[in-house]
Parts: sequence; C-alpha cells; structure tokens
Amino acid sequence: MNAIAAPAAGTPAPEFKSLSPEILAALIADLGDIPVITEEKVVRKRSRDFFWYSPILNEELAKKSADIVALPRDEADVIKIAATCAKYRIPLTPRGGATGNYGQAVPIHGGVLLDMNALDAIEWVKPGHVRVQAGMNIGKLDAELRTSGWEMRMHPSTKRTATIGGFVAGGSGGVGSVMYGGLREPGNILAARIITVEETPRIIELRGDAAQKINRAYGTTGIITALEMPLAPAFPWIDVLVAFDDYKTCLEFGRDVARADGVIKKLLSPIASPLPEYFGPMREPCPDGKAVLLAMIAEPSFETFADMLAGRGTITHKAPMVEEPGQIPLYEYTWNHSTLQMLKADRTVTYLQCLFPPERFVEAILEMAAMFPDELIPHCEFIRFGGQVTCSALPVIRYKGKERLYEIIAAHEAHGVLIANPHVITLEDGSRHKRADADQIGFKAEIDPHGLLNPGKMRTYVPVKP
Amino acid sequence: MNAIAAPAAGTPAPEFKSLSPEILAALIADLGDIPVITEEKVVRKRSRDFFWYSPILNEELAKKSADIVALPRDEADVIKIAATCAKYRIPLTPRGGATGNYGQAVPIHGGVLLDMNALDAIEWVKPGHVRVQAGMNIGKLDAELRTSGWEMRMHPSTKRTATIGGFVAGGSGGVGSVMYGGLREPGNILAARIITVEETPRIIELRGDAAQKINRAYGTTGIITALEMPLAPAFPWIDVLVAFDDYKTCLEFGRDVARADGVIKKLLSPIASPLPEYFGPMREPCPDGKAVLLAMIAEPSFETFADMLAGRGTITHKAPMVEEPGQIPLYEYTWNHSTLQMLKADRTVTYLQCLFPPERFVEAILEMAAMFPDELIPHCEFIRFGGQVTCSALPVIRYKGKERLYEIIAAHEAHGVLIANPHVITLEDGSRHKRADADQIGFKAEIDPHGLLNPGKMRTYVPVKP
Repeated sequence: MNAIAAPAAGTPAPEFKSLSPEILAALIADLGDIPVITEEKVVRKRSRDFFWYSPILNEELAKKSADIVALPRDEADVIKIAATCAKYRIPLTPRGGATGNYGQAVPIHGGVLLDMNALDAIEWVKPGHVRVQAGMNIGKLDAELRTSGWEMRMHPSTKRTATIGGFVAGGSGGVGSVMYGGLREPGNILAARIITVEETPRIIELRGDAAQKINRAYGTTGIITALEMPLAPAFPWIDVLVAFDDYKTCLEFGRDVARADGVIKKLLSPIASPLPEYFGPMREPCPDGKAVLLAMIAEPSFETFADMLAGRGTITHKAPMVEEPGQIPLYEYTWNHSTLQMLKADRTVTYLQCLFPPERFVEAILEMAAMFPDELIPHCEFIRFGGQVTCSALPVIRYKGKERLYEIIAAHEAHGVLIANPHVITLEDGSRHKRADADQIGFKAEIDPHGLLNPGKMRTYVPVKP
Repeated sequence: MNAIAAPAAGTPAPEFKSLSPEILAALIADLGDIPVITEEKVVRKRSRDFFWYSPILNEELAKKSADIVALPRDEADVIKIAATCAKYRIPLTPRGGATGNYGQAVPIHGGVLLDMNALDAIEWVKPGHVRVQAGMNIGKLDAELRTSGWEMRMHPSTKRTATIGGFVAGGSGGVGSVMYGGLREPGNILAARIITVEETPRIIELRGDAAQKINRAYGTTGIITALEMPLAPAFPWIDVLVAFDDYKTCLEFGRDVARADGVIKKLLSPIASPLPEYFGPMREPCPDGKAVLLAMIAEPSFETFADMLAGRGTITHKAPMVEEPGQIPLYEYTWNHSTLQMLKADRTVTYLQCLFPPERFVEAILEMAAMFPDELIPHCEFIRFGGQVTCSALPVIRYKGKERLYEIIAAHEAHGVLIANPHVITLEDGSRHKRADADQIGFKAEIDPHGLLNPGKMRTYVPVKP
C-alpha cells in the first residue's frame, strides 16, 4: 500500500547551513516589496503548529524555527519567492493555518516560512465544484459556498482556522468523511495548481489522479496555489449528542447509521467515558460514566436517525449547527479536537491514529480497549474507506514514555489495526494509508530538484541537484 | 428476512362476486360528481400494467379487469370512494402510472380501479425533502424540484410515466439506488398519508419507520394520498456509455466506480452482449460483441470517472442527460427498460430479478452466466444494500416454459443469489428482500378490515370483517 520506497534506515536528512546575515539581506532585497516578517519572536511563533499533542514531537520540534516569514499577496509573489529560494538554496516551508499535528508546517531546517493566507480568493463556483486559492480559510469558504447551496464535502475539526491548501497538504479527511471517504478517495481532489521551486519556477496543473501527488505531502511536492474541489449539498445540519450505557452499544448504533445510505450525516463520533467529562461547555449533555455519540445529521434525516435509536440510548442534546463567532460547533469536540479538550486539563496524555478493519471493527475496537484499560480511552470516527464503512480512531493515550507508546502501537498492528503514527515528522514513517499510485518521490525530483521544499519531511528523498 | 408469515400452501384468495348492475348503479350514484369511466374497452385498457414481460403473468392476468374506473380529483374524493366501496364490499385497486411489472395495478377481482393521477400537487419543498401528492408524475416532480436545486434520490426507469405513489407502492429502487440504496433503506421514505377502506375511512399519517408499511405493498395496506420523500442535490448529470471486451472487466470497472465514495453517480448498469444490440437509437455506441456500462455521472466527477477507466474500456458516448420530449434519456435503456428494448424485437424472452452477495458478486454473476450460456444474458445494476455496494440484476432469460424458468431460479438460489420472483402476483411469493419489521399483514387488518384493497395480492391476509 505504501507508495514511498521503504525507508533506508539511517538515511541522513539533507544538510542546510544556517542563513548568514548576508544571504538573508540578499533574499530580502530580491523579494522587493513582498511583505516579510523578521522579528524573531513572531517568526518563532508562526513556525509552530499543533505538534505538541505528541510529547515526542514536542521535544523534537519545540526549538525549530524559520529565519524569516514571507507573505505573498498573489501567485506572482509565490513564484518570485520560489525563484529566490532556489537561487540561494534556501529551505522553503509552506504554511496555511498551521493547525496540523505532525509538525508539517514547522521549518526544521530554518529558511523561509511561506505564509499562504493572503491567497484567499474563490476563482469560480459551479454546481458541485469550486476552484479556490490555497490560502483560503475553510470556514470562510464554506460560508461563501452556502450562498449558492453548496459546501465542502469534508473539513477538519479545525475548519474555523485551517486553510484549504493546508488541509489538502496535511490532512487525510475529517468531518464529512463518513459520507465521502478521505481526501485520498478518487474524486475528492479534482485538481491542484502548483509552483515548482527552481530558479525559473514553473506552474503545473495537476488534474484528476495526478492531484494525489500533493495530497498529504506536507507541501514537499510543490507549492499549492489553487485547488479544484468537489462540493456537497449544503444541508441544514442538526448537531446531536446521544448517551449510551456502554461503548459497544454506542459503536453499534453509530455503525447502523453509518451503513444507512438513506440517512445523510456528516459526523458520527463514538467517544468512551471519561473523555466527554473534559468537554467544557458541552459537558452537561454528557452524563457521568456514559459513552456518547456526537453526530451531525441532515435535518430531513433526523427523524429516521431518532427512529433507528429505538431506545438503545438517550438524545441529550439537539440543536441546529451554528458556526457563529463565540459559539462552539459540535465538531470542535470531535476528530483531534476531542484530544485537545482533554489536553487542556491534562498535559500527560497523547493520542494515536488508527484504522480498524471494516469487517470486524466493533470487536477490534473493544479488544484494544480491553487490552489497555488504564491507558487508552476509545474515540472513533466513522468513515468510508474504499467503499466500505469502517472506524478510524483517535484514542487518547496515557503517555508513559516512548517505549510504552510503541508497545501499544505494536499491539494494535498485531491485531490487524492500521496505525498512522502521529509521533513522527516524516511522510514515510507516518502515512501508512497512502495511495499506491501517487509516486511522490519521483514527482518531487521534477519540481524540487534542490530539495528545498519543507526539507526533512520526505526523508527518503535525495535532491537531484543539491 | 421475510416479514410476511410463511404462506400456507393453497390458502384460497377471498371470493368476490361479480358486480351486479344494481350495485354498480348504486355505486355510481353514491359517488356523485366524482368522474368515472364505465366504457368497457377503456376500463380494460386502464386495468393493465406491464405484467406481460412475464409470459406466466401474461397468461394469468390478460383477461382481468376492473368494472369501473374512478378518478378522484382530491383526497376528499378518495375518502368518498373508499367509504362507498366499504359500504358495498367492492374491491378497490389503486393505480398510478401502471408501469409496474408484477400486475400490481391489475384488479384481479374486478371492482373499482382508483386512478390517482389527478392528485398531483406538491404540498411543500424544504431543503432536502418534499411533500407531494401520490399521483404526481415523477418526471414532472423532478422538473419542478430542479428549480430549487434538488431532485428525487431515486426513480424507476419509467420516470416519465410513473407516479411517485406507484413507485413507492410497487417499486423497490432504481436510478439513484447506487448512491442511496433502495426504498427499503431507513430514510428513503420519510412519511406517507393513507386513507383506510372502511365505511367511515380514517386518514393516517405514517412517519419514519412506520411508512415502510406501505412500501412495495401494491396498495394493499392503505390508499396512499401523500408522501414525504428525501431529496438529493440536482447535479448536472452526464450520460456515458463505455464498451469493454468482456463482461468481467465491465463489472470490475463498475464495481470500482460504485465503491469510490468521492465519485457521484446515479446509474451504473453493466450489460452483456448481445443485449445492447437491441438498443435502437442507442445501438451505434454499442459495438458488436462488446459488453457495455451505461452510467450517469455527476459532471464534477466525470474526469475522475474517466481517469479510473485507465484504458480498460472505451467511452463511446458522452452527453449531458436530457429529458426533453422526443429524446430518450440513457436511463430508458437500464433497469427493466433494458428488457423492454429486447422484448420489442423478440417476445420469446423474459427476465429475472436477482440480488448478488456483496462479498463475491463478480464471481457469482459470471458463474450464473456460464451455467446458462444460451438462456441468460447478464444485465446488472449496481446498488447499495445495507451499506455495501453490490449488484442487483435483471438478466434477460430465453423463455422455455415455466418448469425451466423455475429450474433457473433454483440454480441461482442454490448459489446464494437472492431471487425476487417477477413471475408471481402476490407479495408473499415475490418480495423476498422485505424488511423484517414492517408488519404489513397486521397493519392491513387495521386499515382494510373487509379485505377490499387490491385483493389477491397479499394472499395470506384473511379479512377480519369479510
């Protein structure tokens, strides 16, 4: 399944020297009127993402920083920055909302942090698809799409701060994947426009399957400036919370709804006790000791959803989904926001990312929970994967050191559970669900010959023109 | 799986005497200003549906007819007709477009044929659902829904002549079931309003799961006057035809597209040679001896669809779906319209209805084809069933008599293929995919105590007040 060549143990990351004051001055001069930030404190702050969910990444990445932040205003600025970095062989790390958890937006070899947030225009909207600049905030994008009856098929729980480019470059799926699968599924990214990092950068349009070359590549395979994405109908969504006596019943009800193709849903998140007890403003509808299912159900399907419950659990919260400032949408208690809710109160926990086998996910989830009763709190997310309903999961893990964490990972793998390890920074070590046909290393040689794009994240890549 | 009690072999159908001229006159007098048709030739013509696809049903039903057609203008008229039939114990058979293939609209004990076509108003449209009178033509309904960006989730291939009430009462799914499953799936019928057949008829609103009581009951469990149905976004659809060297490759490509949750489709119909050679106006893009896949793909997903083909077949036709008068939409070559195309040229064939097991449908389909090389032309329809992709099928069968037909049915069943027998007129004998929880017989006792609604179709029902 893994498209990236088996990592040669001990392959050294490319070496980059610190930027000399002279090179930095030359870079700034070449950039002309493109806005930059050089104030160290601000540069350091912008160089961080949410890698600190992992105590391992926190140790590795806490001190990493770019030397300078560049703020392109348009694609021409991006091209100029790419050309300049290629000229001086300066590392270049693209950044959107920096809401990722894998350190993907952290420049581990310094250089230029490319803040894409100003490229935030919608190029066009047609029935069922949109073309948008990569730096556009997903929340703002969705709000604009809704005026024409559409919305994004899926978004991360960080929708209100994430950019669409960052999501495609760093994410795998999220709220909506229970209907459409992840970004890796054919048809979930229609096209991407990228800039190469060369002295004379090229603009390349990657259409269809070719667009997978930039999916979850952390920006190592080209600077994404625009994306063509498929849309879903903008239903009125109902946020709903259902409490269950036990996690098994919660999973089974979630499974029944996930498999009901006549019920339109955007989120089905079964979460075991005691995780919901950390849910702050959403604590009240989470009774002590109960498992909860957090769900977003299309208004026309709500009655069917409630019928299907058939007394197995109790609806403790039901309200139209709102995304107004000052209000917290239900999805901000799901996906990796669930982990965040607990981390706010307890910094000694971390998490894993699992994919359970579709034919026996209920059993496998309960097996893993039973194996680590004091160290693992089950939290799943129903998704479609290759045409089937299954559970992905972000269980909260009581962190007892790296060695124990890897024992827990090994136990999952021994039971047929796929792990996408969120405690490593390289694509090769983390993304084991990768599509087989997106030859990202070969493509990188074409578009980043000097190996300047987010160096260190694709560790098996050896620059063809160092 | 079968909700209906095991049929006691030889249970006699309730007996009805022929309508005497006196009773007929009394009936007409009681109906007052409600339009009726009494001209025998017209009544006989209106009493037919498309049962003649089955040589067995053709023999059984060819001479059956109502005594009179009643044409209610509104629900008040329906109530008056129901009351009058109850008063005189006259059989009452509801009819929509009469496009069914099971004789479901044929009054086998005479009496009143209730033509519902004048009840054709949309009560309301809200985002994602509609409430509509039962007699509304589905083509007209879809055209009106499209003005607000929606359309029906699924429709029969007879959309242009069928009514929504007839589809729900007599159908199981169709064009669109590859996304949403059949009508039996939770959420695909939201509510139904029915009239009971009693001297003082009642109006009953069946919501949610309760609405399944009228799904595929042939109108035996209440006269449907209105339906609340869920909607799908109205995509611009592309009709496409792909030719393949062999049927296996055709099935495998269809399967890949069916399982790609990021690709929006409404139809995936793999049809083996030589059936496409009977496709009249659509013959040209069907090369001799090739298998073809007929598909409707949402415009934003078309590029991905073509990418996925990857040289396995050749696109021979591609055009935006049109439903203008004088043009034949692609879906009129699919579902049971495929059979019709061949029947136009060759009245010696008939068909079966199969449901293949999701885990091995390709193998099972090819096994059946290999077993009856000269008698069976494979024609499948991809659907979702219980959350999984599988194939339903309407193979064309060379008819060599009832005995041989039942041998072919038995061979399918012995290989784990479910058969919904379209050569019988009763619900009990035909619909083996029935939901378990819709207790239709018990419900019928409540709403049709005299057993007057479409008598003979639910053969195990014994009237509680004969």
